[in-house]
Amino acid sequence: MTHQVLIGGNWRDSNATGTFQADDPRAASAIVDEYPISSWSECEEALNAAQTGFAEMRQLPVERIAEFLERYADGIESASVEICEMASRETALPVEPRLASGELPRTTGQLRQAAAAARQQSWCLPTIDTATNIRSVYGSIGPVAVFGPNNFPLAFGSISGGDFAAAIAAGNPVIAKANTMHPGTTRLLAEIAQRAAVETGMPAATVQLIYRMSHEDGERLAGDPRLAAIGYTGSRHAGLKLKAAADAVGKPIYLELSSVNPVVILPGALAQRADEIADEFTGSCLMGTGQFCTNPGIVVLNSGADSEAFVERVKSKFNDAPVGTLLSKSGQQGLAAAVKTLVDAGAEIVCGGEQGGGTGYSHSNTLLRVSGEAFLTAPEVFQTEAFGNCSLFVVVNSIDQAVRVVQSLEGNLTGCVYSATDGADDADYDRIAPELRQKVGRLLNDKMPTGVAVSAAMNHGGPFPATGHPGFTAVGVPGSLLRFSMLQCYDNVRASRLPSVLQDENPGDVWRMVDRQWTQRSVELATA
Amino acid sequence: MTHQVLIGGNWRDSNATGTFQADDPRAASAIVDEYPISSWSECEEALNAAQTGFAEMRQLPVERIAEFLERYADGIESASVEICEMASRETALPVEPRLASGELPRTTGQLRQAAAAARQQSWCLPTIDTATNIRSVYGSIGPVAVFGPNNFPLAFGSISGGDFAAAIAAGNPVIAKANTMHPGTTRLLAEIAQRAAVETGMPAATVQLIYRMSHEDGERLAGDPRLAAIGYTGSRHAGLKLKAAADAVGKPIYLELSSVNPVVILPGALAQRADEIADEFTGSCLMGTGQFCTNPGIVVLNSGADSEAFVERVKSKFNDAPVGTLLSKSGQQGLAAAVKTLVDAGAEIVCGGEQGGGTGYSHSNTLLRVSGEAFLTAPEVFQTEAFGNCSLFVVVNSIDQAVRVVQSLEGNLTGCVYSATDGADDADYDRIAPELRQKVGRLLNDKMPTGVAVSAAMNHGGPFPATGHPGFTAVGVPGSLLRFSMLQCYDNVRASRLPSVLQDENPGDVWRMVDRQWTQRSVELATA
Repeated sequence: MTHQVLIGGNWRDSNATGTFQADDPRAASAIVDEYPISSWSECEEALNAAQTGFAEMRQLPVERIAEFLERYADGIESASVEICEMASRETALPVEPRLASGELPRTTGQLRQAAAAARQQSWCLPTIDTATNIRSVYGSIGPVAVFGPNNFPLAFGSISGGDFAAAIAAGNPVIAKANTMHPGTTRLLAEIAQRAAVETGMPAATVQLIYRMSHEDGERLAGDPRLAAIGYTGSRHAGLKLKAAADAVGKPIYLELSSVNPVVILPGALAQRADEIADEFTGSCLMGTGQFCTNPGIVVLNSGADSEAFVERVKSKFNDAPVGTLLSKSGQQGLAAAVKTLVDAGAEIVCGGEQGGGTGYSHSNTLLRVSGEAFLTAPEVFQTEAFGNCSLFVVVNSIDQAVRVVQSLEGNLTGCVYSATDGADDADYDRIAPELRQKVGRLLNDKMPTGVAVSAAMNHGGPFPATGHPGFTAVGVPGSLLRFSMLQCYDNVRASRLPSVLQDENPGDVWRMVDRQWTQRSVELATA
Repeated sequence: MTHQVLIGGNWRDSNATGTFQADDPRAASAIVDEYPISSWSECEEALNAAQTGFAEMRQLPVERIAEFLERYADGIESASVEICEMASRETALPVEPRLASGELPRTTGQLRQAAAAARQQSWCLPTIDTATNIRSVYGSIGPVAVFGPNNFPLAFGSISGGDFAAAIAAGNPVIAKANTMHPGTTRLLAEIAQRAAVETGMPAATVQLIYRMSHEDGERLAGDPRLAAIGYTGSRHAGLKLKAAADAVGKPIYLELSSVNPVVILPGALAQRADEIADEFTGSCLMGTGQFCTNPGIVVLNSGADSEAFVERVKSKFNDAPVGTLLSKSGQQGLAAAVKTLVDAGAEIVCGGEQGGGTGYSHSNTLLRVSGEAFLTAPEVFQTEAFGNCSLFVVVNSIDQAVRVVQSLEGNLTGCVYSATDGADDADYDRIAPELRQKVGRLLNDKMPTGVAVSAAMNHGGPFPATGHPGFTAVGVPGSLLRFSMLQCYDNVRASRLPSVLQDENPGDVWRMVDRQWTQRSVELATA
């Protein structure tokens, strides 16, 4: 039996052009369930339904959207066991602690934060200029397609993750494109989402689910005028195709494509606390078999005895650590190919470098090294993302060379600098940090990049190719909502026709910028 | 003699591949001054200098940037007569009231508002989460190229306008590409800017000026990694080429490409005050010979006697009004070509439709009409922008048809609805406005779209092709600054290394979001 798609509020047989199966990565074999590959006509039905759904959503009070997101979060918690078992089967991520105690609470927490933001409305930055009677606000943009990644089936999932929560909270219906590596998890979540939508009286097409379409149809969807915006997290190759299609019609597309997350360990820090840093690094790099967007993929070290001892310690820990299961066969192949690319370019294998070694799809814990000089001869190649339990040490011969390595980096989600606490590295820090700052979305001190707090101050973003625009974050409320909105200005619009959030009376405790001052008061009070 | 370019703080002879001359539009002939077409190597020198300048700018106190912008504004005022005479000669825009009393004060006002924003720092939305010690802020992005339009030589000029002021205030050096129709005006402004930069101790490459480069070199510049962002206002064709080059490398580019600025006049409004609206429309459409981004290019009217009388009145006013001089020969040719496209598609000429009729480059005041039914057979063609003293009336046979016309529109900067004050049009308004809302950046009631107030609540932006991203405004402070910034997060960064605006102590009266509340207090006080 082929599973059904969710279109316009109805689960129904797909008008499919074929089917596919997901794998069980631990067993390295297919799971029996078949999922449809939707035709273009099915994509069109979803687009049409989303347009109708959007027109209906625009009329809803924000409270309804908040209730939906909260009901959905409750539903996910009620079905926690089933969801985590399915997700674990499809991804090999362990139920405990990762899925049940980590990712699932993060997911429901994000949905509830998004609900609170939708209800409170301060996210949309209402701005009122009383002298000119011009008012503006970030308003909903229209139907959003979300393409989720394979590595966070829940917290970044296309129908449950941060992009989904942000798009809905900003007032937009979502067409979810399942990640084909965990269609069953996505289906379970979609069922709960759809029930929550019905129970809270949301429009029929608030959430829709398509499992897969051809690449051509994906690009066609990205360029279709019925779709207003796109959230994509996944491979750089596929993402760039969607980006080109969206860019050609000037449509906002928010991508998270690749990041090697450079970590610079300055000499004083290594002299002071090499073992501690080695432990931190190993934990960060091997956790979840290294399959995090913020995995520390490049470590810059100064040459010398301290660094050699550090490399040896990490090597020993990598060799001792169990080899985890990767998310997929293509993940195993991709990691092996990336290691080969690095080796072919001149990197030396410190440990690992072999496929297998763990249960099912796997690859040995791998450490590579290259000199700063060699790195600078082909910086693009040495920035090849080896997604998984792997990292490249770049051993530089001077701080000048370290600066040049940092200058040669592409955009990244994160960049870290470890420095001595006694000031020994301060001069070096002052040279490295300004260069690294412009290359990354999040700059860290003395801390590994994995672990992305859901904070209003978080930036899970950064310059291309980490993302498609350095002004937006994919994690954190209210920032993530702004991606799925448009700036809407009202000039001389009659008071009764303004959205409530822009009327003189503050509809609640909304933070609004009235005559250049942030206030929660109503206009006559604010300007009194 | 060929004029010099401004590279790295020095006026010097260009390494040119050729020269060009601007026209005097009133005389319909070339002005003697020759300006260089820069080679790629000159573009590269500007890029390299801008990189150095950016590294220096990052170290400056914001006060310095503010002083520069204010000094520059003062300098423009001191040279007002010379600037306005030159601009009038190159554009045919009258010195009074347009340039001296309108555009020049707008320009200096924008520079001073940008200075105030840079000094006050609230524009960068500092966000502090004390529980996680994560802090973020919109920081400077790097060298910005500004391509200014022909129709506002000062207020949107590449080295004096809103994009320039925003880019500098956000902490970035600017490479200005002069509009080739007013190189002399741009040169005068660049001289004043450069003097102000020297006097206030700004980096050598804070402002640089190139007059022209080949299209290929322009695209190469757009894609070059030394350039961080682009502001472009101009023709759709050239803008899309630059956009493709920037998009391919994931670089932010903010474009203002074209807009027909639909005006919907509902039947009750026409019954109530047709003559008044006809006067407003004529003024808006013919002011500045119609050469505004927000010129009302499409007017939707319900068929019937009131509309016929309205058309007749506007026709009479168009025939009686003097025919203004257009900015350029290509402007005249482009307007004639657009009118021909509309006529060929089935629009009927109500009045005008001929080239010439005024001093120099000109085109008769032109009104066209087409039925709603015909419009809907080729909505894209009928949205051809006829830039200048021209507008197309779309006469619909029902409110349903009006809704379909609005639904068929591309993105626009503005959309207006005129409705009766007695409620007679309210039901129609409620059908039109939600559709129009999603198509435009600024929605107006009972007011023509020309006249873009420099307000914090302004949105001079909108969905593609009005701009390249519907989340940003090109006019208004602080919004316009955000375009030339990147979101920069600091995670566990040591207190002394944080930018002052993110340290616990508020460095002034900066509005910061501390633990989800906007406050001007310091952190220990804010959380007490």
